[in-house]
Amino acid sequence: MQGQMMNRPLLISGLLEYAEQVYPNSEIVSRQVEGGIHRYTYTDAGKRCRQLANALTKLGVEQGDRIGTLAWNTNRHYELYMGVSGMGAITHTVNPRLFPEQISYIINHAEDRLLFVDLTFVPLLEPLADQLTTLQGIVVMTDRAHMPESSLEGLLCYEELLDAESDDYDWPTFSEESAAALCYTSGTTGNPKGVLYSHRSTILHAQAICQPQAINISCDSTILPVVPMFHVCAWGSPYAATLTGAKMVFPGPQMDGPSLHELIETEKVTLALGVPTIWMGLLAYMDEIGKTLDSVESVVVGGAAAPVSMIQKFQETHDIFLIHAWGMTETSPLGTISSCSREMKSMPLAERYPLQQKQGRPIYGVSLKIVDDDGVELARDGVAFGRLLITGPWVAESYFREDHPENFIDGWFDTGDVATIDPQGYMQIVDRRKDVIKSGGEWISSIELENAALGHPAVAESCVIGVAHKKWDERPILLIVKKLGEAISQDDMIEFLTGKVAKWWLPDAVVFVDELPHTATGKLLKMTLREEYQSYLLDR
Amino acid sequence: MQGQMMNRPLLISGLLEYAEQVYPNSEIVSRQVEGGIHRYTYTDAGKRCRQLANALTKLGVEQGDRIGTLAWNTNRHYELYMGVSGMGAITHTVNPRLFPEQISYIINHAEDRLLFVDLTFVPLLEPLADQLTTLQGIVVMTDRAHMPESSLEGLLCYEELLDAESDDYDWPTFSEESAAALCYTSGTTGNPKGVLYSHRSTILHAQAICQPQAINISCDSTILPVVPMFHVCAWGSPYAATLTGAKMVFPGPQMDGPSLHELIETEKVTLALGVPTIWMGLLAYMDEIGKTLDSVESVVVGGAAAPVSMIQKFQETHDIFLIHAWGMTETSPLGTISSCSREMKSMPLAERYPLQQKQGRPIYGVSLKIVDDDGVELARDGVAFGRLLITGPWVAESYFREDHPENFIDGWFDTGDVATIDPQGYMQIVDRRKDVIKSGGEWISSIELENAALGHPAVAESCVIGVAHKKWDERPILLIVKKLGEAISQDDMIEFLTGKVAKWWLPDAVVFVDELPHTATGKLLKMTLREEYQSYLLDR
Repeated sequence: MQGQMMNRPLLISGLLEYAEQVYPNSEIVSRQVEGGIHRYTYTDAGKRCRQLANALTKLGVEQGDRIGTLAWNTNRHYELYMGVSGMGAITHTVNPRLFPEQISYIINHAEDRLLFVDLTFVPLLEPLADQLTTLQGIVVMTDRAHMPESSLEGLLCYEELLDAESDDYDWPTFSEESAAALCYTSGTTGNPKGVLYSHRSTILHAQAICQPQAINISCDSTILPVVPMFHVCAWGSPYAATLTGAKMVFPGPQMDGPSLHELIETEKVTLALGVPTIWMGLLAYMDEIGKTLDSVESVVVGGAAAPVSMIQKFQETHDIFLIHAWGMTETSPLGTISSCSREMKSMPLAERYPLQQKQGRPIYGVSLKIVDDDGVELARDGVAFGRLLITGPWVAESYFREDHPENFIDGWFDTGDVATIDPQGYMQIVDRRKDVIKSGGEWISSIELENAALGHPAVAESCVIGVAHKKWDERPILLIVKKLGEAISQDDMIEFLTGKVAKWWLPDAVVFVDELPHTATGKLLKMTLREEYQSYLLDR
Repeated sequence: MQGQMMNRPLLISGLLEYAEQVYPNSEIVSRQVEGGIHRYTYTDAGKRCRQLANALTKLGVEQGDRIGTLAWNTNRHYELYMGVSGMGAITHTVNPRLFPEQISYIINHAEDRLLFVDLTFVPLLEPLADQLTTLQGIVVMTDRAHMPESSLEGLLCYEELLDAESDDYDWPTFSEESAAALCYTSGTTGNPKGVLYSHRSTILHAQAICQPQAINISCDSTILPVVPMFHVCAWGSPYAATLTGAKMVFPGPQMDGPSLHELIETEKVTLALGVPTIWMGLLAYMDEIGKTLDSVESVVVGGAAAPVSMIQKFQETHDIFLIHAWGMTETSPLGTISSCSREMKSMPLAERYPLQQKQGRPIYGVSLKIVDDDGVELARDGVAFGRLLITGPWVAESYFREDHPENFIDGWFDTGDVATIDPQGYMQIVDRRKDVIKSGGEWISSIELENAALGHPAVAESCVIGVAHKKWDERPILLIVKKLGEAISQDDMIEFLTGKVAKWWLPDAVVFVDELPHTATGKLLKMTLREEYQSYLLDR
């Protein structure tokens, strides 16, 4: 028997209509690519999204068409999020930090019809243009006065397109399972893989992240998404802000410490989201100028594990709770979160930090389990660790136009991570499955060792890999990039680590290097290092 | 083009699985009908819900069957919520406060297959049993020792049914549009009408009420639903608690001041939900004993407008924010809410109270509009008032087995209320459409006049109706039930109201009566009064 409730699909256009009706004067503030600050309300944004939808219609865009963006976090990028998905087309956010050949691969693989590009990225696009066979037009996200000189032909001007259109447009209604946005992973191996979000998954995810035991977003929040809109849709924060009528502050292209600090102070940001690297820069700058971030109540950190030193710095210097979250492009991204709960806040700091270092608990909608190599579920005892599987309405069920059945097993997505789950439901990432070190049948977490090493003031970057060992099959070695002007020896490092990790985890060698290899998006290329150092312990 | 995200239906069983996995030790505390306090965890509850599902299966219950309940807010009623809906049957909560003939009408109309009944309601059921033609069994919600002597034959015992079953049961998967729960309105005219909630509507609604800008429910909350589980599913709070792993405290049959106070104090309740009458009792008792409700942070009031004196009392005596909400059985119920926002909290109280008296803003998912008699939308200026229409995924699209097309127009539900909406999105109920008074072409709110009159210390209950008038077509008269031992004249009353409402709103007569007629659920029967007093002003 069916329920008799209204059959209203969850559509992204509905978010915008909500904010326009209920929070018409809530602001969207944006540092512009051309310089200066842009400021308007959801009412203004709604009008421009409708103008955009009319412009796209005139350009022949139809439901299901992919529309690429190469853009910073700005109000125009937000308009594309709402306008493109709202009309039933698909917002395809391309990561400009990828290697040029990956960018053209992605745009061609998605068969993008139009590409919207910030001024910054026009030069990046010029040498690629010939390879982009599906594009019917490139729109530069600026006004006529700022249109660039370029070898690209027939460039369209964003503001001109909008100016030519009426703001009268009725958002169409369609199935909530329809595709809304497309984002490619930046994996360390193989070609990037596309994740095709639906309207339904996007909205259920936005609802979830707003929950008080997730990020706690409301009409009271002033949100600064520093995490890029080309990176898992800025973790869904633009949708969540719209769903609640929250004030939004976009940093544009400037994510350095001074620029972020200025925005935070001027706009009274209460919640900021970003990867650890960003916060390193901001925290260092704040130390330098000897000020604190007074308006900010919490900072969401994801993309990589937050070192305990960062959790501590935010808390003890700035009175900011660091909300540690974990997720992936394939999970929209929220998988788990260490929220600013009453329980957490009432703990003594020394007890709280280790808990806060865990990646947290799932929010309703997501289910997790850990399994062994035979797929048998392991205990949730905080000790057993195994392959982390996840399922839920905002988890991918397949990749866009690619078969990878090995990642999708019986309704679960295999994250490629190895993790523990404790009896209170807190999940902790032990390692990427391919990076975990198997020493004499026992597992060692490369991430945990790296984080421990990072605690030493002379260490700028650390990397732990497992290399061949005669007796134990595999043993860890620690590669270190020293901070400029700092001196430290292997013995110093081992001594520093002693007591911080199990004795048999201590690396067999510490190697000082000038730099470490990374992917385009800053992930360590451990595969390359494993090849290079494979016989390092055997040769000695 | 379809998105490629997991097709996981939103099912009520998933709420329970979430709480069991992530918040296994969170408590559910219940005052028992047999006396004493029952206390267990989501883990225990989950096991018993599975035992219940096995017992129901053995009793022949199939997906889509309606299972009636006549029960207080207790852990057993909660188990029925989860177990019955979880297995795909329909939890039909019957309101025991209805007149006996309405109760038998409802059970027959729903074709309930089984009825679960608290000890309290067995006597109520005895004279009705012959008329309940669809029932195949009656289960008394108690253990063997407490089974009552009764004229009802073949009564089953709840605890015995559960004891006989294993807690091994796999919740089935089915469409999220499937019916989950059934609740009849207690309208003032005609037979009660059934609203058939789906799993989808129930879960989207639960997600919505947890939002920080709604009721703000999280794993940190300790929730006391005083609003009955037979009244719009206790406003969805049991689902919301499970969705977040919140601690839940059920008052059982005792909703008097002393009992509520004891539970609140012992269990450290942070959030309580109920109708104004309940809080009148509790507040009076707290005054009597000269104590305050220290653990409570907010109280949700719905079902009827909260008088400003109550808002003020909670705030100024108990430091509790009264969250004023509006909804109906047909809206699951959350329509609008005056949440405890930063903006609200930062206002001077004198400025805040009038705003808090409004029924609040819609939460994402719900859309409201006001229209005139021709269906033309009216301005959101806080002044224009008209018929309030509502739409959203947790709004009914029709009644169960009844045609009332006049209530459902072009995808909108006509609430039967008359309201204003201000530019900040706040909705205020002016009156029930049939109760609004039309005086010389202008409208007067009977509710606003009643609330103003209630502010007088001698007034126990007030009622304003429009009656025939030679010159103005209709004019308001005020009916008053005085508090015991209090004296007040018509002139006193008019003087008291002067300045509190527009001069032309002042009632043409004040009539002191011994009592006022009510429906079974306590709503004023204004229709009866209008008939009685129709020529009151003409005759004078």
